[in-house]
Amino acid sequence: MKVDGKPYRTIWLNKDRWSVEIIDQTKFPHRFETVTLRAMDDAARAIKDMLVRGAPLIGATAAYGMALQARIDPSDEALTAAYERLHATRPTAINLKWALDEMMKALRNFPPAERAKRAYDRAAEICEEDVAINQAIGRNGLELIKAIAAKKKPGEPVNVLTHCNAGWLATVDWGTATAPIYMAHDGGIPIHVWVDETRPRNQGASLTAWELGHHGVKHTVIPDNTGGHLMQHGLVDLCIVGTDRTTASGDVCNKIGTYLKALAAHDNGVPFYVALPSPTIDFTIDDGLKQIPIEQRSGDEVTKLTGITKDGRIETVDVVAPGSPVANYAFDVTPAKYVTGLITERGVVKAEKAAIARAFPERA
Amino acid sequence: MKVDGKPYRTIWLNKDRWSVEIIDQTKFPHRFETVTLRAMDDAARAIKDMLVRGAPLIGATAAYGMALQARIDPSDEALTAAYERLHATRPTAINLKWALDEMMKALRNFPPAERAKRAYDRAAEICEEDVAINQAIGRNGLELIKAIAAKKKPGEPVNVLTHCNAGWLATVDWGTATAPIYMAHDGGIPIHVWVDETRPRNQGASLTAWELGHHGVKHTVIPDNTGGHLMQHGLVDLCIVGTDRTTASGDVCNKIGTYLKALAAHDNGVPFYVALPSPTIDFTIDDGLKQIPIEQRSGDEVTKLTGITKDGRIETVDVVAPGSPVANYAFDVTPAKYVTGLITERGVVKAEKAAIARAFPERA
Repeated sequence: MKVDGKPYRTIWLNKDRWSVEIIDQTKFPHRFETVTLRAMDDAARAIKDMLVRGAPLIGATAAYGMALQARIDPSDEALTAAYERLHATRPTAINLKWALDEMMKALRNFPPAERAKRAYDRAAEICEEDVAINQAIGRNGLELIKAIAAKKKPGEPVNVLTHCNAGWLATVDWGTATAPIYMAHDGGIPIHVWVDETRPRNQGASLTAWELGHHGVKHTVIPDNTGGHLMQHGLVDLCIVGTDRTTASGDVCNKIGTYLKALAAHDNGVPFYVALPSPTIDFTIDDGLKQIPIEQRSGDEVTKLTGITKDGRIETVDVVAPGSPVANYAFDVTPAKYVTGLITERGVVKAEKAAIARAFPERA
Repeated sequence: MKVDGKPYRTIWLNKDRWSVEIIDQTKFPHRFETVTLRAMDDAARAIKDMLVRGAPLIGATAAYGMALQARIDPSDEALTAAYERLHATRPTAINLKWALDEMMKALRNFPPAERAKRAYDRAAEICEEDVAINQAIGRNGLELIKAIAAKKKPGEPVNVLTHCNAGWLATVDWGTATAPIYMAHDGGIPIHVWVDETRPRNQGASLTAWELGHHGVKHTVIPDNTGGHLMQHGLVDLCIVGTDRTTASGDVCNKIGTYLKALAAHDNGVPFYVALPSPTIDFTIDDGLKQIPIEQRSGDEVTKLTGITKDGRIETVDVVAPGSPVANYAFDVTPAKYVTGLITERGVVKAEKAAIARAFPERA
């Protein structure tokens, strides 16, 4: 998407056709800096240190990490070592393993001399596939926004609420939850986004707000506590969030706090949609509440906040009473009954086992 | 309540029997400092600069402000000027005006020579009345906690979730939502409190956590996004929150985000109680959503956070994408149907018009 008028992706090949450029997302929202990856190890560090985040972008970065390795040393030994080094950076990221396996499939059993070209080709394909899926999600979600816009007075914006960052910064481009928003905006539909701050890591306030603002989409940052009040007063037309994992029956695991917004949407008759690429549907489980383990992360993410001082220094401050214990559950599960629909690359699907199975018969 | 073993109130008369001591709450949670008020103007500044906050404590501080004035100059002119000066500090605080009017009633029509003593006596009474009401709320709420504890295994704690700070720091002592918690703890009932951080002003993380911790009550600070997940997993036995204003039919206006927790409690069969001194019931209105205007405060409260750095410096940092607009609604309204009961000084009352009227027939 655009950053102040100039189109960007989160990862791209430089003009030299071999080095890889990424945006250093640890610097958000106060700095926009890109970093050049010149070797596999640069890619591994970028993933591990979270210069890149978001499942699709992690996968794409790992794919280019393999390509950078194949360029320097395409031997089986070197590629296996690279696979292991890259996989170890975020071992629980499903997408990371998938991308690495795809790269190995594309390289193994081919002569080492052909591997570098094959690797760059496959990495580029992985990026294009992500973009294509997100565009399809965007087109399908756009229809929902158009239907609401059609009932509004001319010029009156469609108000979307989103939680966390399921934006282009988490993918190669477009994002998932944001794809319909960008398509509506680019298509001239007046749109305004309520951006949940998304404590404790503040991905809404720092990433979603940043990307919407730089693309020119109207938005307002709100504390996570605010969405219910807005929905009670008719200030939200629809919610669109992302998901890390959705069950075969449509229970949605997403950033902690998503469930509370779904309850408020249900209580106020506001449609609540989840945008997702179908690979995030886990057809092996049905009951999200019972079957999805919820990661507990460091309390430091709650107690410490990093920001910029008035005079431009980046500082980290502790904001919790000293000595008070802290709990940090990373995700929650929204039961399918509170989900109006799943916006997938194959269309908007009801959050029900039968409907999901009909949409993805080859996997159900 | 106690601060590291030593009993405190939020406001008290010093040993000289005329100067007034308060806790400087702007220094929380990183410093515990008291400030001496020696003149009416000190009291006015303490209220205006939010060294003291919470309706009952603001009222008590204003009352002592009048007493300090009466000691120096008890003339009608001086007292009227003091009334106006103190009232202007937080003009929308109902309790402030009430306390000032009480003081005027106690002084006007009495000889100036008697006024200082009368003023100190009335201010002390106002403080004792607040303590007595909170203790009655505590006793009534304690019964609810005892009933839950009776069903637990020995030693298993009762888990209470609270939002914002309706604690002793907002009152003269005991607090409202916290009074049953302190009584349970002091009575040896194992209790654990989930403390909502309460963005944007973080009163939970900075004030409630501080006061519970220093009194020795087990607690855990959580992001506001977390409570729904905890309730889904049986980790909350009951919610107790405070209120700024409750309607005659039981709609509860409280800190933004309260409504979301009430929805989650309802969805998971967790009792949701509101602790309140009956003066906060507004018998002139029924429909909280339509009739209570919600204050919108400065976006700076959302974008800027003050905390302490690793090396002990207090810094304020900006954590939102630069240039992104911010909305800051201070309160929301929880419809009566989601409120299990109102814990008042006269007992636990159903959040229904008829029940509230029966409990407070003289006002209904």
